[in-house]
Amino acid sequence: MTGGLTIVGLGPGPVHWIAPEASAAIAAASDIVGYQPYVDRIPERAGQRRHGSDNRVEIDRARHALTMAAEGKQVAVVSGGDPGVFAMAAAVFEAVEAGDPAWRSLEIGVIPGISAMQAAAARLGAPLGHDFCAISLSDNLKPWAIVERRLRAAADGDFVIAFYNPASKARPERIHQAFEILRGCKSAETPVAFARSVGREDERIVVTTLGEADPAAADMSTLVMIGSSETRFIDRPGKSPWLLTPRTYGAGR
Amino acid sequence: MTGGLTIVGLGPGPVHWIAPEASAAIAAASDIVGYQPYVDRIPERAGQRRHGSDNRVEIDRARHALTMAAEGKQVAVVSGGDPGVFAMAAAVFEAVEAGDPAWRSLEIGVIPGISAMQAAAARLGAPLGHDFCAISLSDNLKPWAIVERRLRAAADGDFVIAFYNPASKARPERIHQAFEILRGCKSAETPVAFARSVGREDERIVVTTLGEADPAAADMSTLVMIGSSETRFIDRPGKSPWLLTPRTYGAGR
Repeated sequence: MTGGLTIVGLGPGPVHWIAPEASAAIAAASDIVGYQPYVDRIPERAGQRRHGSDNRVEIDRARHALTMAAEGKQVAVVSGGDPGVFAMAAAVFEAVEAGDPAWRSLEIGVIPGISAMQAAAARLGAPLGHDFCAISLSDNLKPWAIVERRLRAAADGDFVIAFYNPASKARPERIHQAFEILRGCKSAETPVAFARSVGREDERIVVTTLGEADPAAADMSTLVMIGSSETRFIDRPGKSPWLLTPRTYGAGR
Repeated sequence: MTGGLTIVGLGPGPVHWIAPEASAAIAAASDIVGYQPYVDRIPERAGQRRHGSDNRVEIDRARHALTMAAEGKQVAVVSGGDPGVFAMAAAVFEAVEAGDPAWRSLEIGVIPGISAMQAAAARLGAPLGHDFCAISLSDNLKPWAIVERRLRAAADGDFVIAFYNPASKARPERIHQAFEILRGCKSAETPVAFARSVGREDERIVVTTLGEADPAAADMSTLVMIGSSETRFIDRPGKSPWLLTPRTYGAGR
C-alpha cells in the first residue's frame, strides 16, 4: 500500500477559483487534513475522513498528515490561497526536514492556487503589472527587525508591495509601524488599496493613497497593496479608480 | 447592446490549472483575443470569433479588444499565467488610460490564474514559504539600471527572488549580469532553481546553488528561483532535493 500526500490550494474562497487539479486531488483523497474552516469548505463524501484542526498548529497538522501518508493513506492537506505562498507547503516541508527520514521517500505533491494578492490585483485593475514583492507582517515566527529591513529594501527597490497578515488582535500596532516606515521613504501620493475578503460575500475594497490611508482599515482578512513610484490611478465614472502599474518604467520622467 | 471585456488567465499550460471561472468566461465570449499560441490552446466553438496576434503587440491587441467591447461584443483577452503578473492586464489598462474616455465606462474584469513562479514553487517544494519578490529581467520597456537597483534591494532585503523573462535571444547577457550582481552580495551556497515549462511536456527542473549555477540554463520559458539566506535543501533518495524557505527567520543563528 503506497500512500501519498498532496498539498492543495483552495484559493481565496470562491469555488470558481479552485483549479480542476485541486478538486480532483480532494476527490481522490482518503483523508482531508486542514484548518477547520478550510475543511468545512469541502463537500463531505462517504468513506473520506476529515481532520480539521485549529489555527497555529500547522506543524502538528503537517506531522499528522505525513504519518497517515506513511501508513498508506492518500492525504490531501488543504490550504487557503496558494499553499506555496505563506501557507501550508512550508509547514509540511519543515515537518519533513525535522521528521522521520522515511517521509523523504513519500510522494509529496503541491497543487498551486490563486493567492490573495492575485485576487486583490484582479479587482483593482493591474497593480502587479511590474516588479513586486510580498511581505508577511506577522512577527510570530520572525523578528520584527527583518520585516523593517524588508520594508526599507522594498521601498529602495521601488517595488509594488503586497502585505499578507497585516494585522492581528495581539499586535495591532504592526501595520501602523509598517505604514510609518513607508511614509518616511515613499511619496504620500502613492496609491494604496485595502482588499478585504476578495471573492467572498463580505468583499470590500478601499482605494486611497499612502498619505491618506488609515492602516486600521486592515484586518487579518485584508490584503494591502502599496504602489511603486509608477503606480497610478485611472479614474472612471461612478466607481473607485483602477490601479495600474505600467509595464514601462520611467517613461514619464 | 452592452459589451464587456474580461482578461483571463490560462495559467502556465495545463488545462487542469485553469480556474473554472476562466473557462466559463472563455465559453461565454463572442470574441477571443490573444497571442496566437494562447488562442490556439482554446477549443474552437461555432459562432465564436478568434483574433490571434503576434508577440510584442500587446497594446495593439488591447486596443482592438477594447474597441470590440465598446461595439457591444463580449471579449475575452486570454493571457498566459496570471494576467495580472507580467501579462495582459497591464497592457489593457494602459490602453484604457491612453484611449477613448468611453472605455472607462466598460465592464472590465480580470480573472486571476496560476503564475509561473507558483507552478515552479509547487514542483520545488516550498521555496516561496516566506517573503519574496518577482522581477522581470526584460529591459524592453525599462532601463536596465532599475533592474540592477531592484536586484540589489532584493538582496538587501534577503527576499527569495523569482525571475521572469530571464533570457532573450536579443539580450542573452542580462541573466549573466543578474547572477553576477547576486553573487556579489549573496552566499555561493544559496539554493537556485531553473524551472522550465512547468506543467508542459518539456518540463525540466534543475536545482543547484548560486555558486554553481550556469545562467545559460535559462531561456524564455524558464522561471528562475533564487533563495534567501534561510532557503535550504531537503535531500531525498533518488531525486533532486526539495527547496524549503521556512516560516521562521533567523532561528538557526
